[in-house]
Amino acid sequence: MDPEAFLDMANQVIKLKMFPYFDIAHSLLCALAVREDLGPGAIAFSRKHPLACWLSTMLVIFAGGMVANGLLGEPVLAPLKNSPQLYVATIVWYIVFYTPLDIGYQVAKFLPVKVIACAMKEIYRCKKIHDGVSHAAKLYPNAYVIMIIIGTLKGNGAGFTKLIERLIRGAWTPTAMEFMQPTFYTKASVVASIIFVLDKKTELISAPHALVYFGIVIFLVYFKLSSILLGIHDPFVPFENLSCALFFGGIWDSLAKIVGRGQAKEEPKDAKKLN
Amino acid sequence: MDPEAFLDMANQVIKLKMFPYFDIAHSLLCALAVREDLGPGAIAFSRKHPLACWLSTMLVIFAGGMVANGLLGEPVLAPLKNSPQLYVATIVWYIVFYTPLDIGYQVAKFLPVKVIACAMKEIYRCKKIHDGVSHAAKLYPNAYVIMIIIGTLKGNGAGFTKLIERLIRGAWTPTAMEFMQPTFYTKASVVASIIFVLDKKTELISAPHALVYFGIVIFLVYFKLSSILLGIHDPFVPFENLSCALFFGGIWDSLAKIVGRGQAKEEPKDAKKLN
Amino acid sequence: MDPEAFLDMANQVIKLKMFPYFDIAHSLLCALAVREDLGPGAIAFSRKHPLACWLSTMLVIFAGGMVANGLLGEPVLAPLKNSPQLYVATIVWYIVFYTPLDIGYQVAKFLPVKVIACAMKEIYRCKKIHDGVSHAAKLYPNAYVIMIIIGTLKGNGAGFTKLIERLIRGAWTPTAMEFMQPTFYTKASVVASIIFVLDKKTELISAPHALVYFGIVIFLVYFKLSSILLGIHDPFVPFENLSCALFFGGIWDSLAKIVGRGQAKEEPKDAKKLN
Repeated sequence: MDPEAFLDMANQVIKLKMFPYFDIAHSLLCALAVREDLGPGAIAFSRKHPLACWLSTMLVIFAGGMVANGLLGEPVLAPLKNSPQLYVATIVWYIVFYTPLDIGYQVAKFLPVKVIACAMKEIYRCKKIHDGVSHAAKLYPNAYVIMIIIGTLKGNGAGFTKLIERLIRGAWTPTAMEFMQPTFYTKASVVASIIFVLDKKTELISAPHALVYFGIVIFLVYFKLSSILLGIHDPFVPFENLSCALFFGGIWDSLAKIVGRGQAKEEPKDAKKLN
Repeated sequence: MDPEAFLDMANQVIKLKMFPYFDIAHSLLCALAVREDLGPGAIAFSRKHPLACWLSTMLVIFAGGMVANGLLGEPVLAPLKNSPQLYVATIVWYIVFYTPLDIGYQVAKFLPVKVIACAMKEIYRCKKIHDGVSHAAKLYPNAYVIMIIIGTLKGNGAGFTKLIERLIRGAWTPTAMEFMQPTFYTKASVVASIIFVLDKKTELISAPHALVYFGIVIFLVYFKLSSILLGIHDPFVPFENLSCALFFGGIWDSLAKIVGRGQAKEEPKDAKKLN
Repeated sequence: MDPEAFLDMANQVIKLKMFPYFDIAHSLLCALAVREDLGPGAIAFSRKHPLACWLSTMLVIFAGGMVANGLLGEPVLAPLKNSPQLYVATIVWYIVFYTPLDIGYQVAKFLPVKVIACAMKEIYRCKKIHDGVSHAAKLYPNAYVIMIIIGTLKGNGAGFTKLIERLIRGAWTPTAMEFMQPTFYTKASVVASIIFVLDKKTELISAPHALVYFGIVIFLVYFKLSSILLGIHDPFVPFENLSCALFFGGIWDSLAKIVGRGQAKEEPKDAKKLN
């Protein structure tokens, strides 16, 4: 591909208008996620508790903005003030749960539809991470950690509100904490946030901004599609294992075990405490 | 009744001063609700954990303002800055829980006292819903959904903080979610909020504002009193059943069952998944 | 001791710079608390879930500021914007959990180190309570209750976020509510907040401000050290028992039991309900 044409394309991606098509794709996948999370009783639940069903779906759709606003001291409800977006989300929710003969759900689950929606959602995710990092950078120009946190929350807000979302539906699963077993989306959002922070705040990345953005879009879409189509779930695992071994005690623990000190001495003591 | 006199009366109701009598009635019913929620161990609990008892009662009394503020990005503690209101609430709490020989509780539970307090609380509720809708309308002039949410929260805040309130007292009941089984107060607050929004933002309601307000007060007081005195609990049920049948799948599900497609085909599949 | 020299010392204590030494002591004790809370599985947990471990430690370290900000409508993440403080906290966390052969933890647990860190943390706590009360007094000049709440939260924030902190680590302990069994730190923070409010807002305390501050520092350090070294845990218990007897029903309940009315009549009824 011609490099100029590539840069042109990148410049177009960065200017893509999100409403309404990308919002539809995002809402569709969120509503599907809620329906799948409800399991086999989803239909019965949606008939019996339409209010809880609607609220938890809206929470999933607007999770990123709400949580980020809450942590930045801005109105939690502000994402709902965009009425057209809210109407689109409500219509999509209605189609997924209440169409006659469940046609809406069957169409949404149809693979080609899902693949396109997923690709669009990843483009949207990239934009949201970028906006989140920019917004945090405006508020706290030197607080890199806050930028990364807000970028991550905007990118995968629904992961962090899972507990509240289920609580609205009367289910409480305290062990399903995103921080304990971060999903691929969280990790990818963290990495994307870090790259945006480096791009904005340092001179380390010399590529034009549009290219960096486009690169992250491609990375997100590529891994999402390979996860749907090929079943590859988490390309970060080898890096994590490496960094755990190097920085979070892995090698030292092994060494200590071989030498027979430290850990080895502590374990029997702990075992006794447990009995 | 003379229509002019009726309008005069409506104009007086809208200007009623709430402090201190309506605050006393509201605090009294909230403290009674906390005491009843504690069950037979209420006395023992109040002796052993006065701090948790006071905090959870204050949370119930000021729930609406606190939750609404939290969602609008305003200080959660702001409702406590009105010191006289806080002192009244504390005195009422003390009377309900700690008077010698439990006289305070016995008097508060005496039916005529309770009926008057309930009527006053409904008048107060109407004012709070109205203020909530107006406040949200000032912040987000076009976001009808936010207005309805804030009006509802102001009207029945305690319903939505029940989980936190019990958590303060060391009890965790995740299934007692207001959204799952909304009480009459929540539904009435939603309806009142919608009417206020229609009255403020559209030309659909041609009656003078004071009359609309007065009508909602009468509606709330009437159903509250009929619930205490006659045991009628929820006049919304028939409307709910109708709208569930029309819009949330009821009729289509029945049709699909008769035709033997859709639902019928899905259920055995789900049943298998469960095994 | 010469009174002039004493006042000079008090004036110096009030001007003590907190960063970095007091921050290190505070972070160290917080990280140790997290590690002890994790119990015998702490090492294994820190290897398996470094992200959850880091997040919950940061929450404990910055708890006071975050919760107080949340309740005052200010950005919850703002305490993290002070990057050097965040780096210190992260380094201390790393040392406590991941040093080879667990040297960091062993050194931190060494009694003289712990005693010095504890004394420094109490000086820090006093400053935080003072700042919290001043901040709340600026926002709400007449709301004494808000000042006391914010002072207490700043003084012992970690106590009130214990539930969230454990939830981040996938453990849910709803009965471990601070309000139910307030620890010594909470009670001491309440008392210190009340004294600061009296000092600021009334003429009741005629001593110079620096002396009041110094007195609270001495009180906090003294009881902390006697708790570590002598095992005295809660000097407030006799006062609590007295006030419970006088104000929260103690004496009246006893009287009622003797006379054979009120309580006595109610108990059998309650007992029946329980069966």
